[in-house]
Amino acid sequence: MNRESLYRLLYEIKDGNVTPTEALEKLAILPYEDLGYARIDHHRALRRGFPEVIFGSGKTVDQITRIAQGLKEMGQSVLVTRVDPSAAASLELTLPEGEYFESSRLFFWGRRAGRHGGRVVVATGGTADLPVAEEAAVALEVMGNEVERLYDVGVAGVHRLLSRVEDLRSARVIIAVAGMDGALASVVSGLVDVPVVAVPTSVGYGASFGGVAALLSMLNSCSSGVGVVNIDNGFGAAALANLINR
Amino acid sequence: MNRESLYRLLYEIKDGNVTPTEALEKLAILPYEDLGYARIDHHRALRRGFPEVIFGSGKTVDQITRIAQGLKEMGQSVLVTRVDPSAAASLELTLPEGEYFESSRLFFWGRRAGRHGGRVVVATGGTADLPVAEEAAVALEVMGNEVERLYDVGVAGVHRLLSRVEDLRSARVIIAVAGMDGALASVVSGLVDVPVVAVPTSVGYGASFGGVAALLSMLNSCSSGVGVVNIDNGFGAAALANLINR
Amino acid sequence: MNRESLYRLLYEIKDGNVTPTEALEKLAILPYEDLGYARIDHHRALRRGFPEVIFGSGKTVDQITRIAQGLKEMGQSVLVTRVDPSAAASLELTLPEGEYFESSRLFFWGRRAGRHGGRVVVATGGTADLPVAEEAAVALEVMGNEVERLYDVGVAGVHRLLSRVEDLRSARVIIAVAGMDGALASVVSGLVDVPVVAVPTSVGYGASFGGVAALLSMLNSCSSGVGVVNIDNGFGAAALANLINR
Amino acid sequence: MNRESLYRLLYEIKDGNVTPTEALEKLAILPYEDLGYARIDHHRALRRGFPEVIFGSGKTVDQITRIAQGLKEMGQSVLVTRVDPSAAASLELTLPEGEYFESSRLFFWGRRAGRHGGRVVVATGGTADLPVAEEAAVALEVMGNEVERLYDVGVAGVHRLLSRVEDLRSARVIIAVAGMDGALASVVSGLVDVPVVAVPTSVGYGASFGGVAALLSMLNSCSSGVGVVNIDNGFGAAALANLINR
Amino acid sequence: MNRESLYRLLYEIKDGNVTPTEALEKLAILPYEDLGYARIDHHRALRRGFPEVIFGSGKTVDQITRIAQGLKEMGQSVLVTRVDPSAAASLELTLPEGEYFESSRLFFWGRRAGRHGGRVVVATGGTADLPVAEEAAVALEVMGNEVERLYDVGVAGVHRLLSRVEDLRSARVIIAVAGMDGALASVVSGLVDVPVVAVPTSVGYGASFGGVAALLSMLNSCSSGVGVVNIDNGFGAAALANLINR
Amino acid sequence: MNRESLYRLLYEIKDGNVTPTEALEKLAILPYEDLGYARIDHHRALRRGFPEVIFGSGKTVDQITRIAQGLKEMGQSVLVTRVDPSAAASLELTLPEGEYFESSRLFFWGRRAGRHGGRVVVATGGTADLPVAEEAAVALEVMGNEVERLYDVGVAGVHRLLSRVEDLRSARVIIAVAGMDGALASVVSGLVDVPVVAVPTSVGYGASFGGVAALLSMLNSCSSGVGVVNIDNGFGAAALANLINR
Amino acid sequence: MNRESLYRLLYEIKDGNVTPTEALEKLAILPYEDLGYARIDHHRALRRGFPEVIFGSGKTVDQITRIAQGLKEMGQSVLVTRVDPSAAASLELTLPEGEYFESSRLFFWGRRAGRHGGRVVVATGGTADLPVAEEAAVALEVMGNEVERLYDVGVAGVHRLLSRVEDLRSARVIIAVAGMDGALASVVSGLVDVPVVAVPTSVGYGASFGGVAALLSMLNSCSSGVGVVNIDNGFGAAALANLINR
Amino acid sequence: MNRESLYRLLYEIKDGNVTPTEALEKLAILPYEDLGYARIDHHRALRRGFPEVIFGSGKTVDQITRIAQGLKEMGQSVLVTRVDPSAAASLELTLPEGEYFESSRLFFWGRRAGRHGGRVVVATGGTADLPVAEEAAVALEVMGNEVERLYDVGVAGVHRLLSRVEDLRSARVIIAVAGMDGALASVVSGLVDVPVVAVPTSVGYGASFGGVAALLSMLNSCSSGVGVVNIDNGFGAAALANLINR
Repeated sequence: MNRESLYRLLYEIKDGNVTPTEALEKLAILPYEDLGYARIDHHRALRRGFPEVIFGSGKTVDQITRIAQGLKEMGQSVLVTRVDPSAAASLELTLPEGEYFESSRLFFWGRRAGRHGGRVVVATGGTADLPVAEEAAVALEVMGNEVERLYDVGVAGVHRLLSRVEDLRSARVIIAVAGMDGALASVVSGLVDVPVVAVPTSVGYGASFGGVAALLSMLNSCSSGVGVVNIDNGFGAAALANLINR
Repeated sequence: MNRESLYRLLYEIKDGNVTPTEALEKLAILPYEDLGYARIDHHRALRRGFPEVIFGSGKTVDQITRIAQGLKEMGQSVLVTRVDPSAAASLELTLPEGEYFESSRLFFWGRRAGRHGGRVVVATGGTADLPVAEEAAVALEVMGNEVERLYDVGVAGVHRLLSRVEDLRSARVIIAVAGMDGALASVVSGLVDVPVVAVPTSVGYGASFGGVAALLSMLNSCSSGVGVVNIDNGFGAAALANLINR
Repeated sequence: MNRESLYRLLYEIKDGNVTPTEALEKLAILPYEDLGYARIDHHRALRRGFPEVIFGSGKTVDQITRIAQGLKEMGQSVLVTRVDPSAAASLELTLPEGEYFESSRLFFWGRRAGRHGGRVVVATGGTADLPVAEEAAVALEVMGNEVERLYDVGVAGVHRLLSRVEDLRSARVIIAVAGMDGALASVVSGLVDVPVVAVPTSVGYGASFGGVAALLSMLNSCSSGVGVVNIDNGFGAAALANLINR
Repeated sequence: MNRESLYRLLYEIKDGNVTPTEALEKLAILPYEDLGYARIDHHRALRRGFPEVIFGSGKTVDQITRIAQGLKEMGQSVLVTRVDPSAAASLELTLPEGEYFESSRLFFWGRRAGRHGGRVVVATGGTADLPVAEEAAVALEVMGNEVERLYDVGVAGVHRLLSRVEDLRSARVIIAVAGMDGALASVVSGLVDVPVVAVPTSVGYGASFGGVAALLSMLNSCSSGVGVVNIDNGFGAAALANLINR
Repeated sequence: MNRESLYRLLYEIKDGNVTPTEALEKLAILPYEDLGYARIDHHRALRRGFPEVIFGSGKTVDQITRIAQGLKEMGQSVLVTRVDPSAAASLELTLPEGEYFESSRLFFWGRRAGRHGGRVVVATGGTADLPVAEEAAVALEVMGNEVERLYDVGVAGVHRLLSRVEDLRSARVIIAVAGMDGALASVVSGLVDVPVVAVPTSVGYGASFGGVAALLSMLNSCSSGVGVVNIDNGFGAAALANLINR
Repeated sequence: MNRESLYRLLYEIKDGNVTPTEALEKLAILPYEDLGYARIDHHRALRRGFPEVIFGSGKTVDQITRIAQGLKEMGQSVLVTRVDPSAAASLELTLPEGEYFESSRLFFWGRRAGRHGGRVVVATGGTADLPVAEEAAVALEVMGNEVERLYDVGVAGVHRLLSRVEDLRSARVIIAVAGMDGALASVVSGLVDVPVVAVPTSVGYGASFGGVAALLSMLNSCSSGVGVVNIDNGFGAAALANLINR
Repeated sequence: MNRESLYRLLYEIKDGNVTPTEALEKLAILPYEDLGYARIDHHRALRRGFPEVIFGSGKTVDQITRIAQGLKEMGQSVLVTRVDPSAAASLELTLPEGEYFESSRLFFWGRRAGRHGGRVVVATGGTADLPVAEEAAVALEVMGNEVERLYDVGVAGVHRLLSRVEDLRSARVIIAVAGMDGALASVVSGLVDVPVVAVPTSVGYGASFGGVAALLSMLNSCSSGVGVVNIDNGFGAAALANLINR
Repeated sequence: MNRESLYRLLYEIKDGNVTPTEALEKLAILPYEDLGYARIDHHRALRRGFPEVIFGSGKTVDQITRIAQGLKEMGQSVLVTRVDPSAAASLELTLPEGEYFESSRLFFWGRRAGRHGGRVVVATGGTADLPVAEEAAVALEVMGNEVERLYDVGVAGVHRLLSRVEDLRSARVIIAVAGMDGALASVVSGLVDVPVVAVPTSVGYGASFGGVAALLSMLNSCSSGVGVVNIDNGFGAAALANLINR
């Protein structure tokens, strides 16, 4: 309901086509569906440039399935994050045409968005950062982005990264995924002139404090042009990169 | 020194125009100037799309002035952040054509970049967030961006924000600056389909822990599409928004 | 034993109806029962406006059962929190007329308090906040309050919340339950003129630090009129709202 | 602008008294005044039951004075918190009828609200908690509440507190202000059947961590019925108590 | 090897009864036994007034058994802490005369020390603090102290505690065991003139942070005369109380 | 007012010597004096074995002076902690017979308690820990304890400590004062069989976090028999040692 | 590719032996192998003085096996850390000549490096620190160092440590492994004139915060000459000690 | 007093040249001088390979001067750290031949140690890290090490660092000094095969938390061979590097 459509509605009252009571109803009823425990926001697809995403963690399989069902019935695509294999099996019964990506724990049902924008590079410091990186990469592909994976290019062997500088510089936006010292984001950002989305991961032990060390390192990047998302938030990085890349 | 110019250099060796020893020197000497305490990176203007920025805090006035002088002599623009009025007075003696922005504590000398990209909205939760917001806004303007300021639209009175939704939606990128509960970033991001750069500020007291409350709130934004920078890092937000807006 | 009854007791000594030794006993024996590991406070029902509540976590099923039995024998109602299904099965054997609320993990035996006060709205940011919200809602109902549930109205889609403003404004007190950025409390409080009890939840991951992000956000609410309880403390919120609503 | 007034406006369009364009303007222009750096929300007095409060810390004296002036011109009362003596002197020039409360650092201009509700007891653990307690007490009085001060009744000498139990029990709501171990809130709450608003203070040193010890203690109160506000937030406690007491 | 025995040894050299080489050996060989992974300190029984205590957590059952065996062979008593039932079963095979205390997870073999000193009161805030309190109480009894248990006297119902003031005041030292707000230590200490050993427990959830809230509360006790030990460290409290009580 | 005196009072009612109204007054009026901002607890001298101590920090000079004056008038001794030189000058005007101890920032007026108990050793890790150690040592002397100072015996040169083992072992209780790694408490406690009161100090920088490193080290002492007080709390250590030493 | 070999390459271009295109390829192709999820850096053996180490935690058994296989095929030695027994069984199938060290969870395949440098002492505070100490000790032996183990010499009985001073002083470098108060590093370092590598362990509970107490203690060592590695990082300590010992 | 000299002393008793009483005295008197507030350890120069270092912070100028005077009189060299200019002026009066290094706040009196070992490279991330780096560099020079300074080579422009790889690789040990993201240590360590001593600095703001971000980053270095010292501890890094370099 934007300014223009409101203007039109008001004119329809003036012209007698719509009664004030009807107009009031139209203004009051907001376009979401009520499942009791979750309100599905059908306008979000238009507003955010992407269908509703269901954060799978902390919801019962039954809740996920019913929300997904509701979205499907509205003809919307569905992306569910943090789906473990047993929940995936259950979702596949309800949405048999859906696809489950095991390495990223994503479940997708619907039409992939059309290809748009430039290339998004997803880089990781190590092998253990893969699940988070894949959550970002698969989500980006589903949203219509071209993705290049550049895994295990951490700064412990900085030449591995430097040999791929051309790849990094050809991107429209880079997602840097790293745990432990989180130094990847600073080094990558210093090499390029595109936005870098930094994702700290909980990879590490002891004084990594579940990703806090990498998070702080990335927030304090000595190279500017870095935006940070939550620890292990691969999808969040993809959503931000997707908006930048449009 | 990119792939192409390296190729050309190698051919010049083959053609005998350049001796191997000369080539070695060219490859080894990197294009920065050594002041002893600071290496000025003249390639950065090309690489990052913006001239060297001097983080003023923690440097002596003498150090700042000499670095700025070195940059000016190379014909580069200079942006100094966190300049207090007394340091500004000293800088103005060395760089009399420079401009000091008191509310943002920025000092700029040089040519502003040409206008590019869309509009950047800089929004704040409260009046006390102004210095950080102005650091972002002025830096963005100097880098060639159109900026719209939307100050004191915090979520304590959410209708103030809602009345400006059209402004928010017309932006290419939004910078949300807020201290205390940092809720502005989540609410703004939920209303638009453009990237949001969130800047937590140290505004607050007690359990705000110098901006940590706002920082955590922004990292945990329940709306995706938000990239977070360091507490009070107005310039960092501007640098990221500038790269997004190109 | 208030001032008046003490006065009466002292007069009875004067009148010779009570010996000093008897009076001393009356003054000394406080009205609780000693089970060895738990002292049941039978005066509490009068003093706090609600029967003894047993915090179920960290107690053995046997301990819970015996405390509950003791309370029942005194004719008091019993509310046990954080009861997992296996403990509930055991409690139902001892107190067969009791009721177990699975979504909120509450067990109740006794008479519900008479309806009093205005309406209490329990609002949540997301679907995953339900268990905490239900702990609050069921406890409130047992204590005699009218409860309206308003679930999944988080600020990522602020219009969902705004469409229910009339509901919010008609409440005597609102409980705002949210994890992640905890922004719900600030936005709700800014819309109404009634007290808001904020409950941070441990919903989230990474830098939510088990609910700390939401807790800090709520303590720093930019809108005043918010009182915060411990993370996931649905019952504590209900107890406070019940006292406000009397 | 509530449902009813919107209904009336829509009818006026139908009746031709208001053109759609005029109606659009009315709907769009929200009732706040724009000073550039601060938006004054004139509806807030109606909505929150109290005039706009200016948080003085972090604002320049000039900003405070101009916001206060704007409110005064609207005929609204003004309450400014955290006003140091020099800022107070400046405010008194602009608003000579205003009153400055040095012990609480509050500045008030306008009409005190009419007496309403029951009594509010403001209790402190020690002498050093006075400034925070006075911020609460004076704000409550200005908002029309009867206040009783009960200072230095900390639990180190629990009989001091017990001797005042009758005072505590006669209150409609109690504000417990304490630093260090913050135990006052638990003990007070265990003695009464009214809501307790707990205010941790930064009184203490070392492992009090600027009030964190008291804050955590209060959040973990072993007695229910306690709502906690930010460290040193006397005004916030008053605002919440005022809403409870209406 | 104290000053006196050294003096005697030196004289024996002078008298020719001991050669310097022999003396050197005597001085060098310290009285502990080397098991490879654990050095048993047989002098400790004399020095600390109590036999070697084996902290059971983090050691294999085999390691515990062999250390205990070594101590037994030296004729020393053995106290093992944090022994889970399966490890206890194994220990009982090796040391069949030993005793396992299930509620406190202690295992003891040997002679109990003779009764000494005054009475030690062990008080807890709630029922869930029992395991820690029992670790203290049983250890104290084994070390020869008279112990009085005063459980579930938390400050939520301060009269429960006050009715036992005479018990508290008759103690030589009091151990106050409490989780959540940890307020018990402050209130108890304010009522008596004997040392209070405070033991924070990990009882609680959310912002209790595994006992940190209680720990900080106890360190910031507004009543002096309180010494704090580590979270859940019942044995440590007993060891300190035992030394005070001698 | 103990059990016995209550018994006597009740008999006096019976005998008609005291009216119930008079008795009520006697029971209600607790023995403290109300200065408005501070309640002086005259019973404390009897109850805690030491006169009221005024924590000087966070109180105005005027408040300190008036509280001290009130205590003096009751004939009680006065000990004020954390008195800076200018406040001391003011106190000396009011209580000219008082004594100011500059190195410990203590002010004392009254009679020193009679010598009792054994010796208390106050040991420090370094020279910078002196102010805290002196606060403990002077307070102990005023309370009637024999004190031996053992300064700068930190574990960086463990032989310095070992050469004084006889001194340590002859004490009834030891106060170990140390910042940085706080290792002094563990090493001292391992050498003796008397209680050790550990005082972490804020001496250090960086990752000492204002004494937190030493505090945690002391709470985790690998040698039992250690009770910890707050960071820099020299007086608290003295109060605990005094109770142990009686 | 060092300066000299580059010089030779450039000359080969000049001499026409190598074309610029071929040279470009040589310069661009860095010597690592791409497995998709892990880049094996074959130069590292030369550069770091030790073969590639695989951090086993967070990688699947399949990933570990394939990386190890790749290294073996290059003729390089392989050291895998944090290998649990089931992963070890799988590795032994692929690399049957490999050796699994259960107490240290290390797996090694290849040739041990030749003996070099002096002796490395690995000391622990307690028995529970063994797994971390063994990770260091075995890794050091594999890298060609002579290792002496000095276990359970914690400062609770400082004479145990002092009796081994000669052993400590004869080392080229000492690794001090300790949890809880972490005091071992300070005391050891004060006794010797060689570098000490300090390894905090997660041994402990409560306020040890998973090794943070020991970590902070070691970072604040009052004796200089101490370098600290991450909590439980036995291998990291070995790698540093190995570089020092060469 | 080593094993040999003890042996000799014991023989002298046997031979009657020394009485047991004299021997006892010799054994008891340890070689330090007692100034009351500081024990000067004259053996340390021999034991640690470097004269006593006075940590200037937290000591009065008078204390520093008298400790320095005591050391000078023993003929020992003196190094004082964290000396501000006014304290330096005072020291120069007492030790006029001493030297004050303003950029590093060090004061030195005595003979510099003879040149030993290889080269130590001191590298910094930025210009603001200079004071800490100079504390390390000057201390190293005084201790007899050859030092090469490599300042402002942070990873934001990684080519600045790479162009100096030959310098890094020729060192015996490298000190990496960096604030903010602390990434310098990881990148440097990955390029070389010598030990790296990492010094986090408090340079930065907001979420750098006074150097904690850099500290954690360095402890979690993804490249092994890094030992970390306390935040801003330039001298500590020098002391460790000196021991490694011998």
